[in-house]
Amino acid sequence: MIFAGNKVPVFFVEVAGLNDKWKVILSDRTAGEIQLDPLTKKICLCLEPPSLKDNRADVDRLREALGHLVGPVDVPLVLMRKVPGVCRERDWAVTATVGPAGAGTKMIDLEAGDTTARHFGLAVDVGTTTVVVYLVDLGSGEILGTSADYNAQAPLGEDILTRIYLSGSTGGLAGMQEAVVKTINGLLAGLTERCGVAPDEITAAVVSGNSTMIHLLLGLDPGLICREPYIPVVNLPGLLQAGEVGLQVNPQAVLYCLPGVGSYIGGDVVAGVLVSGMHRRKEIAMLVDIGTNGEIVVGNEEWLAACAGAAGPALEGGVARAGMRAEPGAIEHVRIDPKTGKICYNTIGGNLKPAGICGSGLVDCLAEFLLNGIIDRSGHFQHGSGSFTLVPAAESATGAEIAITQTDINNFMRTKGAVNAAVETLLEGVGLDLQAIERFYAAGAFGHYLCLESAVTIGLYPDLPRERMIRLGNSAGEGARQVLLSNRKRLEAEEIARRVTYFELNASQQFMNRFIGSKFLPHTNLDYFPTVKARLRERGLLPDD
Amino acid sequence: MIFAGNKVPVFFVEVAGLNDKWKVILSDRTAGEIQLDPLTKKICLCLEPPSLKDNRADVDRLREALGHLVGPVDVPLVLMRKVPGVCRERDWAVTATVGPAGAGTKMIDLEAGDTTARHFGLAVDVGTTTVVVYLVDLGSGEILGTSADYNAQAPLGEDILTRIYLSGSTGGLAGMQEAVVKTINGLLAGLTERCGVAPDEITAAVVSGNSTMIHLLLGLDPGLICREPYIPVVNLPGLLQAGEVGLQVNPQAVLYCLPGVGSYIGGDVVAGVLVSGMHRRKEIAMLVDIGTNGEIVVGNEEWLAACAGAAGPALEGGVARAGMRAEPGAIEHVRIDPKTGKICYNTIGGNLKPAGICGSGLVDCLAEFLLNGIIDRSGHFQHGSGSFTLVPAAESATGAEIAITQTDINNFMRTKGAVNAAVETLLEGVGLDLQAIERFYAAGAFGHYLCLESAVTIGLYPDLPRERMIRLGNSAGEGARQVLLSNRKRLEAEEIARRVTYFELNASQQFMNRFIGSKFLPHTNLDYFPTVKARLRERGLLPDD
Repeated sequence: MIFAGNKVPVFFVEVAGLNDKWKVILSDRTAGEIQLDPLTKKICLCLEPPSLKDNRADVDRLREALGHLVGPVDVPLVLMRKVPGVCRERDWAVTATVGPAGAGTKMIDLEAGDTTARHFGLAVDVGTTTVVVYLVDLGSGEILGTSADYNAQAPLGEDILTRIYLSGSTGGLAGMQEAVVKTINGLLAGLTERCGVAPDEITAAVVSGNSTMIHLLLGLDPGLICREPYIPVVNLPGLLQAGEVGLQVNPQAVLYCLPGVGSYIGGDVVAGVLVSGMHRRKEIAMLVDIGTNGEIVVGNEEWLAACAGAAGPALEGGVARAGMRAEPGAIEHVRIDPKTGKICYNTIGGNLKPAGICGSGLVDCLAEFLLNGIIDRSGHFQHGSGSFTLVPAAESATGAEIAITQTDINNFMRTKGAVNAAVETLLEGVGLDLQAIERFYAAGAFGHYLCLESAVTIGLYPDLPRERMIRLGNSAGEGARQVLLSNRKRLEAEEIARRVTYFELNASQQFMNRFIGSKFLPHTNLDYFPTVKARLRERGLLPDD
Repeated sequence: MIFAGNKVPVFFVEVAGLNDKWKVILSDRTAGEIQLDPLTKKICLCLEPPSLKDNRADVDRLREALGHLVGPVDVPLVLMRKVPGVCRERDWAVTATVGPAGAGTKMIDLEAGDTTARHFGLAVDVGTTTVVVYLVDLGSGEILGTSADYNAQAPLGEDILTRIYLSGSTGGLAGMQEAVVKTINGLLAGLTERCGVAPDEITAAVVSGNSTMIHLLLGLDPGLICREPYIPVVNLPGLLQAGEVGLQVNPQAVLYCLPGVGSYIGGDVVAGVLVSGMHRRKEIAMLVDIGTNGEIVVGNEEWLAACAGAAGPALEGGVARAGMRAEPGAIEHVRIDPKTGKICYNTIGGNLKPAGICGSGLVDCLAEFLLNGIIDRSGHFQHGSGSFTLVPAAESATGAEIAITQTDINNFMRTKGAVNAAVETLLEGVGLDLQAIERFYAAGAFGHYLCLESAVTIGLYPDLPRERMIRLGNSAGEGARQVLLSNRKRLEAEEIARRVTYFELNASQQFMNRFIGSKFLPHTNLDYFPTVKARLRERGLLPDD
């Protein structure tokens, strides 16, 4: 979704501009706010060598010296075993790596001499489809390298529900865990080689993902996530050890998973809130992350509420007749000239012949169809035709025409309706309407590539002044990086997870009612979408008031 | 040393009486003072079942409920995996076992229903020769069973120095660790079967032993213990996990080793101090634990000082021509009628024919020889003979006579001299002399079986009013049990280890000087031993003043 081939351009925060000309801002914008205080620390010590007058034991000597700097430190038995040798290797100059464990601090590694310049961590975004690994220099906060690949679970089960189901079979959970760990380790092997970093030098890893992905990574049975009352095994796994999961980093490395709120609001969404900063501002903001599920958070510094609705695979290009993943050859953007009716499109990967259409292309189609009177506000083709041809057979990569059918549109309308219904149920739950929203954040990969104007036109996003609409890009990965680099951010993430009130839509009758009533473009109430209303009127597609 | 066959009578504290009639006091004397607060706790909880209105995750729900009772609790990943199943097995009634970990608290196990009645721990005394395991009911503090066996390391290397040496060879350390773990697990298997306890129900283990034994148990290289400046890897290993060492108990069980002071003052001696209570009284006391090494602690509530001297194997019956371990058939006590010269002895195991003589028998011999004028105060036979026959060949189990030679006595005098020199060097170090000692504690197995009067006669123990001389029995095991049953005792043990000032005799010239000058019976200065002086005079073995 977020990459073509294996090279991933990663921009953490984008500010939406007008007319789809996005001003790309690198992570500095947020990273600039972070005081570097990484999950693990390296401390170089010159210990007093033992003598007859000072015959403290090696580990006790080391622990005392560290204690003066960071308080009591727990030394695991496996490290005790190497302390005498390491201490004597460079004449009692050692570098200890320490990190949080339970309520205290533990030693993660001990090296001879001063190795403080070599201090590395991982931020990992485990998506249902894609896994992204960032290798981070914990001394500078700099990203040394990024690598992404499909989650190797996907061939076992395309969507989350299938994977939960398969985890219940014999060996299923172990297989799912193995697959995602294999994916991460594969990416890691490439990154460490490319950057000249030894796996043992990586002493911290922060992972964000939805609740099911975190369960599968940790080998926790996700079976109860999809059954009423929808209960995860854990929302806050806390501080774990990388070796317990099989990550090929220092086996003692701290492993932290961003905390989730519930079965369908996971650490990836909490990462989005963290990166947006909406939990620290007075203004009321909305964050939307649309993938297979649509996750919505509303709130400000005083309160936060969230819900999730099954968006279905329509937006991922999974069900449209000509649909495909956001891979090279997929049509990602479409424009129709209102005067000539000429269709312009572009494909991922440059000038490749189109092979199909991905989610962002479908959103564009729906918006353009509406703005050109090809479909009406209820999503029906106006001229009796059952489909609309985007690319004739002769121009396509497959030799078959690429067309959008009425069925495709109907599926898409259901997805959009689900998102709208979720938004409105949530707003009603907190006693607000759409006009109360002062700022909008689009999180996740889909939000990253989607044309904002098209999303507003079809009512997927609210119709706010565009400078108040912000794309967070891969906020799951960026949130993981921030937590990796700042213990304050880690506590902030936990605070967010605790503060969010979770509305369970699976059991909401209101949601079902709204779902049925929300399948209009952009909305039953056009006044909520003033710019769309104006454009439709401009084009003569609305009767005068 | 402390058992005949495999059955061990275990009495923790004995008070020395007059004329070798010991009043045996069971552990209640000290245990009565302990407020039961075991290393691990079992807590039964009736959790609120999850619902749409209360959709907290299982682990978080459990952690919150526990948090109200014991503060924040860390749940290891392996336990998270079983939480959902266990919670639902008995309708959300569960029993959590928790214990200290680092600076906080961790969960050790979770069981369905109320299992608080079944809560067990181990106290283990790992001696160089013998390992004793106590299975303790942590709910009542009661000892359910005791079992002892030779340390399986012994066949690999008889004494400590040999084992340290062997640990340096390839696979040597692993072999030593395996041997002692095998010994403990073997004893454990018998105990758990006999008492109907499942290994997983044992959630805490406290071990005491000398520093080398603890190093070998934990797989820590003891190589530097015997090389100047004599530095252990660790004196305070802290809270470990039983599974890391391979003990066949609950793999998450807390493993705690009593802290040591230095290479030659280990957790076994700290256990002795803890059991004696000398660290909490105003009176100045001395504790002596004689085995292969002689360990001495002097002090009171304000200060504690300790040293150790290599006593050598003479007291263990290892070098005398007729010497043997304290096993069935060993002569353990000897008396010579001053009038008739008739020799009385008794053997371990009842009326067995004597096969040799063990350490306590040798001490009796030396005392009786002195009191009957057979040797003089410098340990030389008086009548030109090179040996003294205790048992003629016809009466012995082996068909060879059992005799004490001048060489045996010389070896023994060296050992006694080493202990005396250590005592005096230590006393000089703290600015006191023998007469300042107000109370005396005999710790360890040797001190348990030794005839107190004989030990005083030869000057191994000081000449105090007998009611001020207390035997601690297996204080290493009892100390471990107290720490298992009381967190306050654990902190007290750590406080003792921190407070003790350690005098390293290996490097002391004073010690060498005293060693050479201290080979008189009972002492060069007879005024330090008034009762011995009186008896010698009574028998006409001293010139009048």
